[in-house]
Amino acid sequence: MIKFKEFKEVCDKSIEMIEAAGLLLTPEDKKNITAADFGLSRLKKEGVQILTLFQTDRIAGKILVLLPNQTEPEHWHPTVGNDPGKEEVIRAISGNLRFYIPGKNTMKEGFIVDGKQDCYTMRNEIVMKPGAQLILPAGTKHWFQAGEEGAVMYSFSTTVTDLNDQFTDPKIVRETIIEEPSSNTH
Amino acid sequence: MIKFKEFKEVCDKSIEMIEAAGLLLTPEDKKNITAADFGLSRLKKEGVQILTLFQTDRIAGKILVLLPNQTEPEHWHPTVGNDPGKEEVIRAISGNLRFYIPGKNTMKEGFIVDGKQDCYTMRNEIVMKPGAQLILPAGTKHWFQAGEEGAVMYSFSTTVTDLNDQFTDPKIVRETIIEEPSSNTH
Repeated sequence: MIKFKEFKEVCDKSIEMIEAAGLLLTPEDKKNITAADFGLSRLKKEGVQILTLFQTDRIAGKILVLLPNQTEPEHWHPTVGNDPGKEEVIRAISGNLRFYIPGKNTMKEGFIVDGKQDCYTMRNEIVMKPGAQLILPAGTKHWFQAGEEGAVMYSFSTTVTDLNDQFTDPKIVRETIIEEPSSNTH
Repeated sequence: MIKFKEFKEVCDKSIEMIEAAGLLLTPEDKKNITAADFGLSRLKKEGVQILTLFQTDRIAGKILVLLPNQTEPEHWHPTVGNDPGKEEVIRAISGNLRFYIPGKNTMKEGFIVDGKQDCYTMRNEIVMKPGAQLILPAGTKHWFQAGEEGAVMYSFSTTVTDLNDQFTDPKIVRETIIEEPSSNTH
């Protein structure tokens, strides 16, 4: 669960980071930002901000933002019915970004979230400078993390099937609940 | 056919326009720019510059550039085998851009290429300011044109099937032939 105040703060900060990176957002685009805490209720440590640019039945384009030292939990996009699973292309825009994918342990710049060794099992580190791209075929286990500056990136993909995403951390639920402002007065 | 000198001039100018729009290109990206004259040999009037960011078997991301008053000929992306046809999302980045799609004739800002009334049959005009997006479902007939400033835009799509594109102008061939520098000495 995310308190509305934190949700708004994090979304506003993310829009600021996107604009500082030189991307043009329309007022419509800005309304499409959201944050995901994966049900862990510690958004700034494990979470991500997502601004959907477009999403059809076949393709989607999003801007993803990580705050400084924020980590998106390890997950993969499985086969769903006739769909072989979501394929995703990441393009780094600004900040410092590390991706972790299958392969040899080359972890150097990043860190494992405290006490969560079993939830972050991919250790092949890809440091992505602005302009770097990474293709994640369907089914590829991955997680990613920002350094001290945070990170802004594009995510382009085939059909979005978010609610079918699989996570390594058994505590995760994909749906994010935002506590409304009125609840804050209790 | 495009002479190499013109090809290089147009590609260099297009990279300049992309960078002036605030987009970051890596040296690798810049190598991926090309120009298409659709076999008409009048690139600056009818043609487009294309910088492919990524292209997999399932999705593609490109930056398209139109020089001032350059027009991309009318075409559509047909069904190819099991593929229902390429779906494309355009996002305007800079300059002034007009798209023409099926619907009522609302043409006002743009122009029909001289003597080519029969080759530009869609007249429903969508003026796209920076940040505007347009979804073109598979099979949608379309053409587009820049105004005095030229235009830079993203094109995100499902599987690219360019060589299967269908054009209204019967003189068009999709393959572009670039005349090598050595030929210029004749």
